[in-house]
Amino acid sequence: MSRETLTLDDARSLAARCLVANGCDEHNAAPVVESMVAAEGDDCQSHGLFRLPGYVRGLRAGAINGRARPEVLASAPGVLRVKGDNAMAPVAHAACFGRLAQEAGTRGICHAGLQRVHHFSALWVEIETLAAEGLVAMACVNYMPVVTPAGGRRPLFGTNPFSFGWPRPGGRPMVFDMATAAMARGEIMIAGREGRQLPPGAGVDAEGRPSTDPADVLAGAQLPFGGYKGSAMALMVELLAGPLIGEALSIETAEEHEGGERWPPAGGEFVLAMDPARLGGDRWAESAERLFGVFGNGDGARLPGDRRHAARARIAREGFQLPRTLVDEIRALTDA
Amino acid sequence: MSRETLTLDDARSLAARCLVANGCDEHNAAPVVESMVAAEGDDCQSHGLFRLPGYVRGLRAGAINGRARPEVLASAPGVLRVKGDNAMAPVAHAACFGRLAQEAGTRGICHAGLQRVHHFSALWVEIETLAAEGLVAMACVNYMPVVTPAGGRRPLFGTNPFSFGWPRPGGRPMVFDMATAAMARGEIMIAGREGRQLPPGAGVDAEGRPSTDPADVLAGAQLPFGGYKGSAMALMVELLAGPLIGEALSIETAEEHEGGERWPPAGGEFVLAMDPARLGGDRWAESAERLFGVFGNGDGARLPGDRRHAARARIAREGFQLPRTLVDEIRALTDA
Repeated sequence: MSRETLTLDDARSLAARCLVANGCDEHNAAPVVESMVAAEGDDCQSHGLFRLPGYVRGLRAGAINGRARPEVLASAPGVLRVKGDNAMAPVAHAACFGRLAQEAGTRGICHAGLQRVHHFSALWVEIETLAAEGLVAMACVNYMPVVTPAGGRRPLFGTNPFSFGWPRPGGRPMVFDMATAAMARGEIMIAGREGRQLPPGAGVDAEGRPSTDPADVLAGAQLPFGGYKGSAMALMVELLAGPLIGEALSIETAEEHEGGERWPPAGGEFVLAMDPARLGGDRWAESAERLFGVFGNGDGARLPGDRRHAARARIAREGFQLPRTLVDEIRALTDA
Repeated sequence: MSRETLTLDDARSLAARCLVANGCDEHNAAPVVESMVAAEGDDCQSHGLFRLPGYVRGLRAGAINGRARPEVLASAPGVLRVKGDNAMAPVAHAACFGRLAQEAGTRGICHAGLQRVHHFSALWVEIETLAAEGLVAMACVNYMPVVTPAGGRRPLFGTNPFSFGWPRPGGRPMVFDMATAAMARGEIMIAGREGRQLPPGAGVDAEGRPSTDPADVLAGAQLPFGGYKGSAMALMVELLAGPLIGEALSIETAEEHEGGERWPPAGGEFVLAMDPARLGGDRWAESAERLFGVFGNGDGARLPGDRRHAARARIAREGFQLPRTLVDEIRALTDA
């Protein structure tokens, strides 16, 4: 595959021009661009500029609002409700994270429930933003149903990612971001295209039988990671990012879309931020660093995020590569 | 093994007499008894009266305070810090849950960080208590290090259970409670005693090599469930129930004990309660019930807790069985 090397600044202006050409104002384009560029900068291509054509289709369809102004309401001290106005999620984050961080820092804890946003970015980007401000943070989203609970066959859950971050004074936060599905859907599609079998546990066919055939699993259902325990986590994400915050379940999102809602349908995000300096007293950082310090002390275990951080320095220096077909597609979407 | 059949009321008075005979006042005995009896009532014997001899040893050693008065401080609205006074954890729950529920109901969210408590009970008991009051709740604890992160060999985490509950108006809450370790330590010990091998993924030997030999794993380290994703969850629990709330890491708990702290050492608990009626508006229950309704619709998936609920009706009616050796041990601990 032919590839083109870009700097992060190249990516920034390529993406910004494309979004603005497709109806975004600066206010909406900027945070989305930064989220995609952060993903490219950490070698997470699946959440980088690869997402841009999808945003553009949503903008052109009128499903995504490129001139959104998410509204931040405090339903109580330390509790924010964000009416997303069909914004791309990073726009809603930009609208509420200042207040979220301020309230978490004042009280020790603050929750934000985001409604009607389009979340196609990596969760770790926003969690790292909060953790870099000294906050312990968690977030999760649900979406279209593609994952069946352990033991089942009917898709009820999205891939339902969950992300958690821990601040490290003087260093990069420790952040993990994982689908509660055993595999990313994209990986299954790629395995199918390349004629590869899936590892056991990735999914079931339409009859609920375990299968390692990508086509079977795409027609049946993906499975959660880690058996019935991972399935419980997927259920928790489904509820936190849906009914708890007045948003849709994955099965409701599918119904809304079948009922005529333009593609992509919007959804919710659950966010929680806590200030360890307020909740934990003055030893929180020293204590956590002791744990992080013995992690992987030659024995093979790595802290989550280590690989991303290693990529970051290299890509900031050397840039990164994009398939030429994607660069051409983005240019065409900008000019058309 | 010879067994004795008891009613739940038999268990209640057996346990209460034993705790009082070993230095507990009524205030401390009652909530601990109810927690153990709830476990027996749901056929969770590992958290039932099986725990009583351990409590008694801790009381006799002076590590557990049978006359504790946990102190509930509000460090900010919606944020409670509970100084546990070395109480058994259910005593601290009894002290703070009224206020936790009231604040969560008023504001939408309330956190409690419990310090210096002895948690040997099942997490689902306290989570069900909160969920039965209409709250979405989560809790977790860490303890002595027996679990290594995925890829490692040095034990850094406790079995680090995590529990989540969702209220169901008119029915029993949906509650799950799972160790983030692949297996319970007790199950590994039983397999060893019975000469059985462990399933793959339960642990590693002292060199970090995967092993299915119980003795190897007990000398080496247990593994988290679900590979590196479950390992990330175990790390999150370690941080939430430790440094975030001003409490010890599992490795710090081990050091305290080695440093002379009486057995069992105390630890922390992270608790969060949220009111879906305040956060989610008026559709929260109907929406979640739609999901629960299609769960296991003939396709094999079950809602977490279904098995416990099925046991509950039977045991309330018929009582339950305890090994006669345990009953005799409890009677001896009561009379000695």
